[in-house]
Amino acid sequence: MTLKKLPTGVQDILPRECRVLSDVRARLARAFEARGYEPVLSAAVEYYDTYAGIRNALPQERMFKFTDSDGRLLVLRPDATLSISRIAATKLDKTRTRLYYFLDKWDAQDAAGGVKNREIIQAGVERLGEEGAFSDAQTIAFAIDCMRLAGLSDCIADVGHVGYMKGLLEECGLSDAQAEEVRASLNAKDGLNAERFLKNAGAGEETLAAVRALPTLFGGAEVFERAKRLTGNARALDAVAHLERVHRILADMGYEQSVCFDFGTGKSLSYYSGIVFSGLVKEVGAPVLSGGRYDDLADDFGRHIPAVGFAIGLKRVLVALERQGKLPAEPVPDVAVSCEEGAEGEADALCKRLIGEGKRVTLCAEYGAETLRETAAARRYFVKKGEVLEV
Amino acid sequence: MTLKKLPTGVQDILPRECRVLSDVRARLARAFEARGYEPVLSAAVEYYDTYAGIRNALPQERMFKFTDSDGRLLVLRPDATLSISRIAATKLDKTRTRLYYFLDKWDAQDAAGGVKNREIIQAGVERLGEEGAFSDAQTIAFAIDCMRLAGLSDCIADVGHVGYMKGLLEECGLSDAQAEEVRASLNAKDGLNAERFLKNAGAGEETLAAVRALPTLFGGAEVFERAKRLTGNARALDAVAHLERVHRILADMGYEQSVCFDFGTGKSLSYYSGIVFSGLVKEVGAPVLSGGRYDDLADDFGRHIPAVGFAIGLKRVLVALERQGKLPAEPVPDVAVSCEEGAEGEADALCKRLIGEGKRVTLCAEYGAETLRETAAARRYFVKKGEVLEV
Repeated sequence: MTLKKLPTGVQDILPRECRVLSDVRARLARAFEARGYEPVLSAAVEYYDTYAGIRNALPQERMFKFTDSDGRLLVLRPDATLSISRIAATKLDKTRTRLYYFLDKWDAQDAAGGVKNREIIQAGVERLGEEGAFSDAQTIAFAIDCMRLAGLSDCIADVGHVGYMKGLLEECGLSDAQAEEVRASLNAKDGLNAERFLKNAGAGEETLAAVRALPTLFGGAEVFERAKRLTGNARALDAVAHLERVHRILADMGYEQSVCFDFGTGKSLSYYSGIVFSGLVKEVGAPVLSGGRYDDLADDFGRHIPAVGFAIGLKRVLVALERQGKLPAEPVPDVAVSCEEGAEGEADALCKRLIGEGKRVTLCAEYGAETLRETAAARRYFVKKGEVLEV
Repeated sequence: MTLKKLPTGVQDILPRECRVLSDVRARLARAFEARGYEPVLSAAVEYYDTYAGIRNALPQERMFKFTDSDGRLLVLRPDATLSISRIAATKLDKTRTRLYYFLDKWDAQDAAGGVKNREIIQAGVERLGEEGAFSDAQTIAFAIDCMRLAGLSDCIADVGHVGYMKGLLEECGLSDAQAEEVRASLNAKDGLNAERFLKNAGAGEETLAAVRALPTLFGGAEVFERAKRLTGNARALDAVAHLERVHRILADMGYEQSVCFDFGTGKSLSYYSGIVFSGLVKEVGAPVLSGGRYDDLADDFGRHIPAVGFAIGLKRVLVALERQGKLPAEPVPDVAVSCEEGAEGEADALCKRLIGEGKRVTLCAEYGAETLRETAAARRYFVKKGEVLEV
C-alpha cells in the first residue's frame, strides 16, 4: 500500500526544519532586496518544447513530463536559471537588471538505486546585462555573504573558469560536443578515458600534461602561475588573467580567505561561458551553492544578455546547519491565553496587545484554565470577564 | 513555435507583482508565527494512489498525472489541505497543533475554453485537534485579520455550515452521493434540477420550500430565525445553533461588521463537516480565501483529527489589491554606488554600512562615475581611493 509513502527523492518538511528553512529564506530575501535585486517567479509547468529545442537542452530523461488535456507535452520546471533567462529575454523591458527567486526545480533522475534528491528547493540571484571581473567578484562575494547569512560558518567559494578547459581542448581541435565528453570524463574522475579520447583526437604532449594536471590545479592565488606554465593557449591564458583580476578584487573586498581557485571544474562547458563557482562547507559532500557566468543562455530565447548568478540549495543548507550543530531548538510560544465563555473578546484583545509587543501568543480553543496546563508557553494567562489572571 | 509561450492557466510573475506577493507572504508569515502556528511543507510530487483511494478523492481529470521511471503513477500536488492532513496523520507526534504553509497546488482542468488558473499559489493555516464554536470563531476572525494584513479593505467572511443542507437532504433519505448531486445543482444555480431530483426522492413540501429558500438564506444574524423556521430537522437546527454561538463570539471579538451568514453554501458536503467560509472583497468575483472545518479528512490517512483551516489565494489577493488601487509603485533603490578600479573594497564597505542603516543599495558592476547616471536611485556615490563623492 503506497497511500502514505512518498516517491523516491521527495520529502515533506516538518515544522522544526521548516522553520529554519523559512527563517533562512526570510534572511536571504532581505539581503537580496537590500542589494537591489528584484523578485520574480516563473510558472512551474511549461511546454516541453521550450527546453527541448535549445542549445543547452536538458536531457529529457531528467525532466518530469506529462501531457496536457490538448495533447501537448508539459514539463515540471527543470531549471530555474533557464526559466529566468526566458523571462528576461521575452518579458522584461530592461536587459540590465538584478533578479532573485525562490523556486523549486525537479529532476526526474532514475527513481531506482537509492535516495536522490529529485525536488530541489532553491534561492537564487541573476545579474543580467553585466560583464567583467568586478561583476563576477561581486557575485562571488555575495554568494559567500549569503551562505553566512544562512547561518553557515567556514564557507568557501571554489572558483574556476570554463575558458581554461575550453582553451586546452580547442588546442586539440575538439568540437564543443567532444570537449563536453572530455569534461564529463574528468568530472567522473575518469582521467584515463579523457586522455585516450584526447590522444585519438591528436592532442600533443603539452595538452595531455595540462589535462592530467587539471584535477590538482586548485588552491590559493599561487595556482595561477602553475596554470599559466601549463599552456600557451590564448583562451586558457585569458581565463587565468580574468581569474587573477577577480582574485585581486575579492582580496580588496576582504574575501581572500573564503575563496579558492580550481581549474579542474566539472561544470558544463555548454551552459557556462566564464567563471564558475561552488559554495562549499566541509560538513557536506556536495556544494550548497552553485553559480557562474552564462552569457549565451538567453540567446536561445532570442536575446543576448550576458549574465552571472548563483542558486543556493536550501535542503543542503539545512543538512549543513544540522551538521554544524546550528539547528536551533524549537521555540516555545511566549504566552498562552485561555478564557471563560463570554470573555472571548477580552482574551483576543489581550493576545493582540501581546503580539503588538512582539510576543508569540497561542489563544486556546477551549474554555477554562485547565487547557492552559497542556499548552507549552513561557507565561500563561486566564481571562475572566473584567479580569486577567496569570496562572 | 511554442518556445516562449506558457501553457494555459499558468503565469510568470514579474518583479512589480512579485514584490507585492513577497511582501504579503512575509506579513502573513509573521502573523502566523505570532499566533503560534508552525510551518510545514509537503512534497509537490506524490503517488496518485495516495489521493485516488480516499473518500474525498479528487476527480482524476483535475490532477496532473505522470509516470515515474519505475512505472508508478505520480500527481502534482492537487490540494494542500489533503497533504497537510496526510502529514498530520502519519508524521506528527501531536495531533493537537497549529500549522501554516505556503504551497502551490495545480488543477489540471481542461486547457481548452479560455483562461483558467491552473497553478494556484496559496498561503494557509490548519488548526488540528480542535473542536467547538470558539475554535471556529477564532479561525474566521484570523481569516479576516489575514485578508486585512494582506492589504485588503472591506473584507467580508461569508460563513455557512454544511450541516444545514446535510440535515435538509437527509430528511428526504438522500444518500451522501445524492446529497452531493443536489448541492452541485444548487451550486450551479440550477434550483429546478435540484427540486426535480428531490421530488423523485420523495421530498416533502417543507423540505422543498427550505431548499428553494437556500439561495436567499443569507445576511446578518437575523437570518438565523428564518433558517430555524424553515425546518424541524435536528441536524439542520444544530447547525443553526452552532452558527449562533460562532456569531456571538465573533461579535464579542469585534468582527460582527465583517461577517455575514449564508446557508446556501456551495461547498463540498463530503470534504467539509461543519462551518465553511469564504473571504470576499467586492472587487473580485471569486473568494480570495476559502476555509472550513473538515473533521474527517485525516481519517483517510488512518487517524481521526478534527480540524479547521483556510487557504488564501495569493494571485487573487494581487488582483484584489490592484482593483482596490493598492499596488504600490516600484521602489527606487535608495542608493547607487560605483567606484574606480582599485577602490572596490572601499565601495563594498560603504554599501554594507548603508545596508546596515536599512537602505536599499546597488553597487554598479562597471567602473567610473558615468554608470551611476543610468542607475535609478535616490542618491549616488562615486568611490575613489580614500574619498567618497556624492554625484
